[in-house]
Amino acid sequence: MAQQDTHAISPRRDEDYPEWYQQVVGAAELAEASSVRGCMVIKPWGYSLWERIQAGLDGMFKATGHVNAYFPLFIPLSYLEKEAEHVEGFAKECAVVTHHRLEAGPDGKLVPAGKLEEPLIVRPTSETIIGATYAKWVQSYRDLPILINQWANVVRWEMRTRLFLRTTEFLWQEGHTAHETSDEAWVETRKILDVYRTFAEEYLAMPVLTGEKTPGQRFPGAVNTLCIEAMMQDRKALQAGTSHFLGQNFAKASGIMYQTRDGGRDFAWTTSWGVSTRLIGGLVMVHGDDDGMVMPPRVAPSHVVVLPIVRKEQERAPIMSYCESLAAALRAQSYHGSPVGVVVDSRDMNAGEKGWQWIKRGIPLRVEVGPRDMEKQAVFVGRRDKGPREKAGQPRDAFVAGIAAVLDEIQQNLRDRAAAFQARHTRAIDAWDDFAAFFTPANAEKPEIHGGFAMSHWCDGEACERKIADDLTVTIRCVPLDREKGGPGKCVVCGKESKGRVVFAKAY
Amino acid sequence: MAQQDTHAISPRRDEDYPEWYQQVVGAAELAEASSVRGCMVIKPWGYSLWERIQAGLDGMFKATGHVNAYFPLFIPLSYLEKEAEHVEGFAKECAVVTHHRLEAGPDGKLVPAGKLEEPLIVRPTSETIIGATYAKWVQSYRDLPILINQWANVVRWEMRTRLFLRTTEFLWQEGHTAHETSDEAWVETRKILDVYRTFAEEYLAMPVLTGEKTPGQRFPGAVNTLCIEAMMQDRKALQAGTSHFLGQNFAKASGIMYQTRDGGRDFAWTTSWGVSTRLIGGLVMVHGDDDGMVMPPRVAPSHVVVLPIVRKEQERAPIMSYCESLAAALRAQSYHGSPVGVVVDSRDMNAGEKGWQWIKRGIPLRVEVGPRDMEKQAVFVGRRDKGPREKAGQPRDAFVAGIAAVLDEIQQNLRDRAAAFQARHTRAIDAWDDFAAFFTPANAEKPEIHGGFAMSHWCDGEACERKIADDLTVTIRCVPLDREKGGPGKCVVCGKESKGRVVFAKAY
Repeated sequence: MAQQDTHAISPRRDEDYPEWYQQVVGAAELAEASSVRGCMVIKPWGYSLWERIQAGLDGMFKATGHVNAYFPLFIPLSYLEKEAEHVEGFAKECAVVTHHRLEAGPDGKLVPAGKLEEPLIVRPTSETIIGATYAKWVQSYRDLPILINQWANVVRWEMRTRLFLRTTEFLWQEGHTAHETSDEAWVETRKILDVYRTFAEEYLAMPVLTGEKTPGQRFPGAVNTLCIEAMMQDRKALQAGTSHFLGQNFAKASGIMYQTRDGGRDFAWTTSWGVSTRLIGGLVMVHGDDDGMVMPPRVAPSHVVVLPIVRKEQERAPIMSYCESLAAALRAQSYHGSPVGVVVDSRDMNAGEKGWQWIKRGIPLRVEVGPRDMEKQAVFVGRRDKGPREKAGQPRDAFVAGIAAVLDEIQQNLRDRAAAFQARHTRAIDAWDDFAAFFTPANAEKPEIHGGFAMSHWCDGEACERKIADDLTVTIRCVPLDREKGGPGKCVVCGKESKGRVVFAKAY
Repeated sequence: MAQQDTHAISPRRDEDYPEWYQQVVGAAELAEASSVRGCMVIKPWGYSLWERIQAGLDGMFKATGHVNAYFPLFIPLSYLEKEAEHVEGFAKECAVVTHHRLEAGPDGKLVPAGKLEEPLIVRPTSETIIGATYAKWVQSYRDLPILINQWANVVRWEMRTRLFLRTTEFLWQEGHTAHETSDEAWVETRKILDVYRTFAEEYLAMPVLTGEKTPGQRFPGAVNTLCIEAMMQDRKALQAGTSHFLGQNFAKASGIMYQTRDGGRDFAWTTSWGVSTRLIGGLVMVHGDDDGMVMPPRVAPSHVVVLPIVRKEQERAPIMSYCESLAAALRAQSYHGSPVGVVVDSRDMNAGEKGWQWIKRGIPLRVEVGPRDMEKQAVFVGRRDKGPREKAGQPRDAFVAGIAAVLDEIQQNLRDRAAAFQARHTRAIDAWDDFAAFFTPANAEKPEIHGGFAMSHWCDGEACERKIADDLTVTIRCVPLDREKGGPGKCVVCGKESKGRVVFAKAY
């Protein structure tokens, strides 16, 4: 167990950030590797976090006029091929179903049998299969817009995987919309970017930068890709959500045509957009500390753990009943429209060990209840956004009445902390030498210690983009939509004209 | 449009039941076939119904101590093989992933490449992959029980598919629990059967019979399979949910071992249980009528559609505002803990056609609002459990105040109707001739018109079970757990001793 000077997670963030991440995911019981290459098991505590993320986003999608539906897991190979850039982007890493049964082979062992005429791809994303359906649904402008979202699993055969950040199978939502005009589709693309930004900031307490991707970083087949980018505590960027303006590319590939208002025929304009279980990796890396996970209250699986401190057996019954009545009183309080989530952990184990378990899991509040607290009608409270030993007694009733306010305070505190971190490590840089130094680890043994986000000028040239990728493994994370507001300048690489600064960073 | 003597769905149930089913699923916009063999597209109205089913069941699972998690989509072939009966049961119809990328072949067309060392099966069910994880999690009796559920898609390569009833891919929940003792696992198996029965009756308004499957009808690898069985309107049975007692079979196959309280080592006792999107097919067939779908209010995607009847353009604004305020008042009412769901359908189309669309979709209540209703502060209401033309005016405020009671009345009415239908077509039969006649269609052109459920004696012999399957395509749907309460008798096939009656029926 962690002592006064140690921490619950080893190594610390500043010792070995990638390893710290794996340790936190494990210690918080969020997920673990499965025996299937690159696929993870999302454990109950991690899945419950995903359920909160789903509920929050789903509410925002519905409030903006979207409905959910479900489309097939399998995509015929010929569908994937319909959009040339798209298949190029996904063919290299996809799970291919070639047979539909198993049969005993010559040596008695089972082997694939029943070869399919056409191989099926396990969906890496669903533009083509959904497009084929929309082509049937859309006849006239009256059938537009279609505003559908799907919660689903997808598979991309990644060679190097990391829990939540890059896994062969992951869970996500994918929105697919079809519109009458380019303008409407563009408004939708922007609207969803805004939903993602709002969700990241208000629910995940994760400040993000927004903008568009450079042509080379777009979704395969998209005309434009908008994104939200967050800064992790190793100062790298994490692409946390994307919203694609697909123009008429996929409508042409799938044949989504409609009769226009003036009796003509045109292809629809489509968008697609998604966020995934990757957000959980982002949460760990934005808020986690050297004691483990830190859950923002808005998405925490539970808000409060009540820890009965029983030293003598005859105390057990009264303390348990005090704890249960405290839990009931807390659950009767509402936090953003839902009851406050409370766990009473009465497991028979060392109290210190038990407390540390909940710290590692990142629950926002720990409430210890011993005989003396009970006598005084008090509680002894630890907040996860403060040090693990920084606990304070307070009257039970005041704690119950103020629970929503405290949770909001923790939420705001996490958000402020993350915003301050991001601001501290974001710099406007104009000279190439400064730029290169910013992204060069001070200590070669810790390649993750670099500057952060550089706001620098760029000539829009692919050669300059490639040079920073090759020399520094830095990419353009996004081109702010209001890029020109900051005024023009000179490209940090080649010195040519630039319309405005863009965001450079190392990235996941 | 349907006239006085016609119906919205053609054919009627008594004309061609299977075709009626397909027509209702289509007309209600629940689902449609996709271009991928055997896979369906669940449309927004159908998916919303599934979301209600999920929410209801999920709440019941959580209330009985279960948590959700997520396990991999893929199962290594070697895992599936670990339980002999299990692989036997699923090897004949599974999607096999053999490659992990696509490459241009000699003719430039893409072909599967990157052959996997071991083929992966797209999960038909997850006992083996989850068992492998539990084997890691369980060391001691202190780690038990594990009570986990998963909401997921599964794939079984069915040769003959029907929307919702039998599709290659379907959505379901699968619970997987591990226990210290046989008794505990059996209690869990029974508890879930009870959850399923309660859910079917109270949410789906679908009366069910419960009991255990005969050995030949058990889940492959299970020691015992409990089930709920419902009667469709063609008097066939639909297996609507199963709860399996797996004994130590899968624990042995997966190596789920634990240290016992007395320091020994033993295999855990496991259960698994599931219901799927098949329930939607059951809802259609239990409640649907010759005008389309009929949604039980507890799971209806929406409860009320408000239909503005605008005949002159200058009426539009006041009528719309009256409708919107009515909708707001209804939404402020609560039905079983959630706001009443209301749609205002202001689409510019023929009012009759629009009304029929909502009848076919099965929404519980239709409220028409024309200028005269507005003047009188009234509404004109049609209930889906009554005839489509049986509409009645009533004061707006009384309608709003009574909305929850009316919805409950509709729910109860559907349940009573289904229970009466089931009772009417369930008969105790003792003689073979009567039994055979009961299951022999009176009219050879309509093989679906048979008797229903026969409660008859059975000697527990496999030969008698096979004879009724071969001669009459009738199966034993379940052996009631309280079978012996009705007293012993003589097997309806062979005349030997029987411990009590069992349920015979034709089935989906």
